[in-house]
Amino acid sequence: MAKDKSTFNLKTPKGTKDWSGSDALLRDRIFTTIADVFKRHGGTALDTPVFELREILAGKYGEDSKLIYDLQDQGGEICSLRYDLTVPFARWLAMNPDVRSMKRYHIAKVYRRDQPAVSKGRMREFYQCDFDVAGTFDPMVPDAEVLKIVTEVFEELGWKGRYSIKINHRKILDGVFEVCGVPTDKIRPISSAVDKLDKMPWADVRKEMVEEKGLDGAVADKIESYVVKKGGRELLDTLLKDESLLANASAKAGLENMGLLMDYLEAFGVLDRISFDMSLARGLDYYTGVIYEVVTEGSAPAIQSTDPEAQKVQKSGKKGKSKGGNLEDDDRSNDPTLGVGSVAAGGRYDNLVGMFLPKAQIPCVGVSFGVDRIFSITKARIEREKSAESLRSSEVDAFVMAFGGKGFTGMLKERMNVCQTLWNAGVKAEFSYKLKPKLPQQFKAAEQGGIPFAVILGEDELAKGEVRIKEMGLEEGHPEKEGVLVKLADLADEVKSRVARKREQSTVTQKLEDLTVDAAKTA
Amino acid sequence: MAKDKSTFNLKTPKGTKDWSGSDALLRDRIFTTIADVFKRHGGTALDTPVFELREILAGKYGEDSKLIYDLQDQGGEICSLRYDLTVPFARWLAMNPDVRSMKRYHIAKVYRRDQPAVSKGRMREFYQCDFDVAGTFDPMVPDAEVLKIVTEVFEELGWKGRYSIKINHRKILDGVFEVCGVPTDKIRPISSAVDKLDKMPWADVRKEMVEEKGLDGAVADKIESYVVKKGGRELLDTLLKDESLLANASAKAGLENMGLLMDYLEAFGVLDRISFDMSLARGLDYYTGVIYEVVTEGSAPAIQSTDPEAQKVQKSGKKGKSKGGNLEDDDRSNDPTLGVGSVAAGGRYDNLVGMFLPKAQIPCVGVSFGVDRIFSITKARIEREKSAESLRSSEVDAFVMAFGGKGFTGMLKERMNVCQTLWNAGVKAEFSYKLKPKLPQQFKAAEQGGIPFAVILGEDELAKGEVRIKEMGLEEGHPEKEGVLVKLADLADEVKSRVARKREQSTVTQKLEDLTVDAAKTA
Repeated sequence: MAKDKSTFNLKTPKGTKDWSGSDALLRDRIFTTIADVFKRHGGTALDTPVFELREILAGKYGEDSKLIYDLQDQGGEICSLRYDLTVPFARWLAMNPDVRSMKRYHIAKVYRRDQPAVSKGRMREFYQCDFDVAGTFDPMVPDAEVLKIVTEVFEELGWKGRYSIKINHRKILDGVFEVCGVPTDKIRPISSAVDKLDKMPWADVRKEMVEEKGLDGAVADKIESYVVKKGGRELLDTLLKDESLLANASAKAGLENMGLLMDYLEAFGVLDRISFDMSLARGLDYYTGVIYEVVTEGSAPAIQSTDPEAQKVQKSGKKGKSKGGNLEDDDRSNDPTLGVGSVAAGGRYDNLVGMFLPKAQIPCVGVSFGVDRIFSITKARIEREKSAESLRSSEVDAFVMAFGGKGFTGMLKERMNVCQTLWNAGVKAEFSYKLKPKLPQQFKAAEQGGIPFAVILGEDELAKGEVRIKEMGLEEGHPEKEGVLVKLADLADEVKSRVARKREQSTVTQKLEDLTVDAAKTA
Repeated sequence: MAKDKSTFNLKTPKGTKDWSGSDALLRDRIFTTIADVFKRHGGTALDTPVFELREILAGKYGEDSKLIYDLQDQGGEICSLRYDLTVPFARWLAMNPDVRSMKRYHIAKVYRRDQPAVSKGRMREFYQCDFDVAGTFDPMVPDAEVLKIVTEVFEELGWKGRYSIKINHRKILDGVFEVCGVPTDKIRPISSAVDKLDKMPWADVRKEMVEEKGLDGAVADKIESYVVKKGGRELLDTLLKDESLLANASAKAGLENMGLLMDYLEAFGVLDRISFDMSLARGLDYYTGVIYEVVTEGSAPAIQSTDPEAQKVQKSGKKGKSKGGNLEDDDRSNDPTLGVGSVAAGGRYDNLVGMFLPKAQIPCVGVSFGVDRIFSITKARIEREKSAESLRSSEVDAFVMAFGGKGFTGMLKERMNVCQTLWNAGVKAEFSYKLKPKLPQQFKAAEQGGIPFAVILGEDELAKGEVRIKEMGLEEGHPEKEGVLVKLADLADEVKSRVARKREQSTVTQKLEDLTVDAAKTA
């Protein structure tokens, strides 16, 4: 080993960071919440290598391919770090042709040599959480389940009433463009322009269509009459009376799909979480059916007002910058599967697997959750709502401590033995590694860790087979301020029931927030 | 996007593999089991980037440095994929000098450009599960807790009675070598030779010492009298009567440490799981105190007999091959932190952090679990013990299905609605994506998924607010063979209590095995 190499550059590589303490714990809880929902719907895990043969990734990401990390050629195969989880999934499906249908989830890091903006959460190494259903099924059934999954994830994260799912359908959009008279070769560029309606007013989008993309002004105006529409089933009913739309095969198929989807979302009890938003177009080319994006009050920009006047005021100064612009300053996500300001997004893509195996097309529909953004919003909310408190870094429930008078031995083995009892019963517990710790030191350690219960050993009490359980942070005058004596044999059960009781007092929306600890105590 | 590129090489890079289905689920359960134990002991998660600045890794792995994966220089920093989790942890401790103590765990992939031997589980991308305690504490207290953690992990994996923890102490070993008369510059090479006693007989080890390493034969014979000793506290007591050992400062300190450790392991109730094995030396140079290695009946080579004669017979044909040998054929782990045949290993390393920050030495003790080997052994055991069965790939508890006579609509929305009720109550449930699935198709899907309960909707019963719960796979004549009718309002609770009851029937050692499903049904 090298000795005394004193000039280490002690940092992580650009655009990467270490996750530790309360941040790591909070992120881990978000992962667990999301994975539990995925599993509840029969999702099976797929884990692919962090690098792929370079040719597998080639030709999948358009001009973003320049952002792919390559491994050095050290002899042997030429590899690159994965850029997303979707292409590896498609590669896996193509490699396993006996699998004709699958609900797969994958929570893992992806890599992009983008200009990082750490403060905005745009990193070169970041997590994606994907759920996808592959297979040929009756129309819109898996699509509806994916949207049900989206609602469950955000509601288990405590976001009920604070998020909205915008949905649209590529076939409706393409039909609208055809009906309005957009030339076929302009449909994708015009669709991209429409997609910017969440961050710029119609006037600017129209300008882009007419001046940059050469669309006839009258066609643009016709488009406006459709894409400003937002609503629920009543909007669908209105469109289903539009003779010119119904005469277009694409629009008609899309509208029928949308009707089915709404029926199914109603059966799943989540139709009210959905907003049919005709301006939603989504950036990626590969979507072929329903598309969706989740926005929340905490994501930037804020959810747009449906009032066109208010829309013009909101964010009118913010224009989406192209990749060639000042990347440090723009507010786009580093994840092209997510729109600006969205926390999850997805849709149906029926033709991607065929890129690897043209004869074995497998239709897919899926969603990707932007965990970094969900983390930032959740953390900010916890900090806002509990401003005097900081987050815990471990989940320990009990700190086992001892005290004594003159000649106090420290009772190390007794503390160890009591810890053993707790651990063996599944209780998360710690004790001081000191031989003779002072009682205030032990309380301080418990407070700093945000540990809710102290288990206190005294020589006389222990001789009688008893220990004291004391809930931390009780107010003066509380009947149990000094703790309660319990039989050693009952200790584990007593701690467990107290921990469970304390946890029950947390509401569902506080589930993630019970990680908090009074910062005043840890200062 | 590229179109119709028809010559993809559809594979994962050499030495890597996809994890899917029941393998992914079983591995995930092993991770959860291990992480739960880590958290129970106050472990906090640390997640570091998958690549580090190359200079951070340089000079840490000796000649194994040639196995490090480098990223291509695409402009900017020069990086490499991490080789283990210990060096990133030491780098993190050096970067965060305000953290003077920490219990950290890290479960993540590491990368080694070694010659892969996939059938033996030696991969280029594989997982490590590490728990380490950093900080200055009273002697042997955290060391004892790390060993307690090892016992909890293997017992929660259902290995009680099937594993053994060999422990030794570098200071005892070094003292023995000094007392026997090994020259100082030969202590590490002689220690490496001793470490091979788990895979070759003493005669071969002696030969290596004398012929290859130039040790005096009489010195080697003295060493033998010590390193063949194995036992428990009685062995320690014997050594504590050895005047020549007690006269050696290193041996004396090591023996005192070992006495303390045994006291603490007794307080933790796990002293009987430990075997004090004076032949255990561990390969890595950086250990400074207690060292340990876990072996199990399923790991190769088998646990050595303590009978010296039997030892000579066992594995006498197997010699540890050097890195330059035929790598495809040797049986070493690809993880140098693990010995041959061990499933977990570790020890105290007090000087590693100082390599990054010489002025801020932080003593550490830790353990690394070899998940790939634990996975292989667990899977083989499940397959052996349930030979007619295969493993499940999802954890779904209920399959919601419907049937009806002539004019049957398929009851899709009704099935969706019942699924919603189950999901909202936290029950893992699936349904067929077909509009009008046939009943046998639905039963087949439930059987193939190893789903334990069917929830069956019939039009007449549903009209009365009732559905049928049927446990899958009951024998003919079982009173509930045809299922039981329950009120729709009670369905979720009924399913939950039945799932819980079924799970309780599994013993602790079957915890990982309740993933099984009758293969005869899925064929």
